[in-house]
Amino acid sequence: MTDETILLRPIGIVANSIKETLPPDQIKAVGSRIILAPELVPGLVGLTAGQEIMVIFYFHLASADVVLQQHPRHDLSRPKRGVFALRSPERPNPIGVTTVNLVTIEGNVLHVNHLDAVDGTPVLDIKPA
Amino acid sequence: MTDETILLRPIGIVANSIKETLPPDQIKAVGSRIILAPELVPGLVGLTAGQEIMVIFYFHLASADVVLQQHPRHDLSRPKRGVFALRSPERPNPIGVTTVNLVTIEGNVLHVNHLDAVDGTPVLDIKPA
Repeated sequence: MTDETILLRPIGIVANSIKETLPPDQIKAVGSRIILAPELVPGLVGLTAGQEIMVIFYFHLASADVVLQQHPRHDLSRPKRGVFALRSPERPNPIGVTTVNLVTIEGNVLHVNHLDAVDGTPVLDIKPA
Repeated sequence: MTDETILLRPIGIVANSIKETLPPDQIKAVGSRIILAPELVPGLVGLTAGQEIMVIFYFHLASADVVLQQHPRHDLSRPKRGVFALRSPERPNPIGVTTVNLVTIEGNVLHVNHLDAVDGTPVLDIKPA
């Protein structure tokens, strides 16, 4: 069942001032840009400033050694939970999904608020939230 | 930027009575099971019956020829929109994200309602909604 593999290609990349892994609330506090591959710009028609969009991205800094049960947010005082009951980046497929506010679009650049992805994160998809 | 590729491996597969592509509302109307890879069952600890979970899956039936602007739901009376302003399965990375109700868990099988993925769909991730 899980022998097949799926190959994806990023549609763009995150740019912001966060260069290392931090707690998600600290990353969300800064504004981010999503630099879309220029050839995909026609795919943005219909998105409007101020709306919420879902950003699907790849946790490229996550460790490849996935632990199936983890302390929430590395807090040892909290009991371990299964990775599918957590939003930890360290998961079998390190995919993140966050709903963000689309501030504005300039050409192939989307300015967004509340994205919890660090600088350089590959973006896999954008959908209306 | 988009030259790198990302390799994912399904964590499980959808099982239900829908064997072909149908409008999402018709697929959501049937109950579905998510058959998790047995070795990943420890990752379910902390999920409870009745809660909402986010299911991330791969539209394996989607055409590889992606059109960047499409009529919503193939309705020619509606103007074309960009693929990132639509939830169409035909998108640069054919990833679906749906919030479903977790009815119950039996071993490596999650019974869910409101999933709009056909039988045999590869599942990439499960997160708390």
